Amino acid sequence: MASNIYDLAYELENALKNSQEYKTLQAKYEDIRMDPAAKKLFDQFRNIQMKLQEKQMTGQNISQNEVQEAQSVAAMVQQNPKIVQLMDAEQHMSIAINEVNKIVMKPLDELYGKMSQ
Amino acid sequence: MASNIYDLAYELENALKNSQEYKTLQAKYEDIRMDPAAKKLFDQFRNIQMKLQEKQMTGQNISQNEVQEAQSVAAMVQQNPKIVQLMDAEQHMSIAINEVNKIVMKPLDELYGKMSQ
Ligand SMILES: [Ca+2]
Ligand SMILES: [Ca+2]
Repeated sequence: MASNIYDLAYELENALKNSQEYKTLQAKYEDIRMDPAAKKLFDQFRNIQMKLQEKQMTGQNISQNEVQEAQSVAAMVQQNPKIVQLMDAEQHMSIAINEVNKIVMKPLDELYGKMSQ
Repeated sequence: MASNIYDLAYELENALKNSQEYKTLQAKYEDIRMDPAAKKLFDQFRNIQMKLQEKQMTGQNISQNEVQEAQSVAAMVQQNPKIVQLMDAEQHMSIAINEVNKIVMKPLDELYGKMSQ
């Protein structure tokens, strides 16, 4: 790969790292890391999400118990301002990343689009 | 999102579009588009791949017939130099894209890594 592509990738990495979206996300993660109760709830939430997602992707049955557990943890998460703020920050970061990906990947999308006509 | 992030994303898009990897991929796609027999085989190959992938992801059964069809089309694809060259070009492009993504996404990987400790 041409070296200017690497240079631009590193510049973009640096710009993203210095963006408001990233700094906010970093701060919200730190808020949770410093709060053991929030951290525990957050970990629980992520673990259930991953478990259910994996089961869905591999076509395994999800039990009524698991659905209830997921709903109950999700309800607790909604009551925790630090986690709500983190999820909001994650969404903003994710929108920024998607915009970047859409721009960078446009030439490839065009190629594939042309090919599937 | 800060405007310099957009600027860098567009510069990166342009650099990727002018890369040897992209130009080669574009040329190999064009070779196939101009060859109806290769294009038909290529479309057939992609369709089977997508169908099987979708079935796998949604946990549906894949029949013995479908496996045989996929193997037979894959064998024909291996005998078609234009498609073999396209798949090689796709792999090179994909390696370049993965390298770019790894660089750009490093700050996020670091955040998530720190959080899952
Ligand atoms: Ca290379
Ligand atoms: Ca924004």
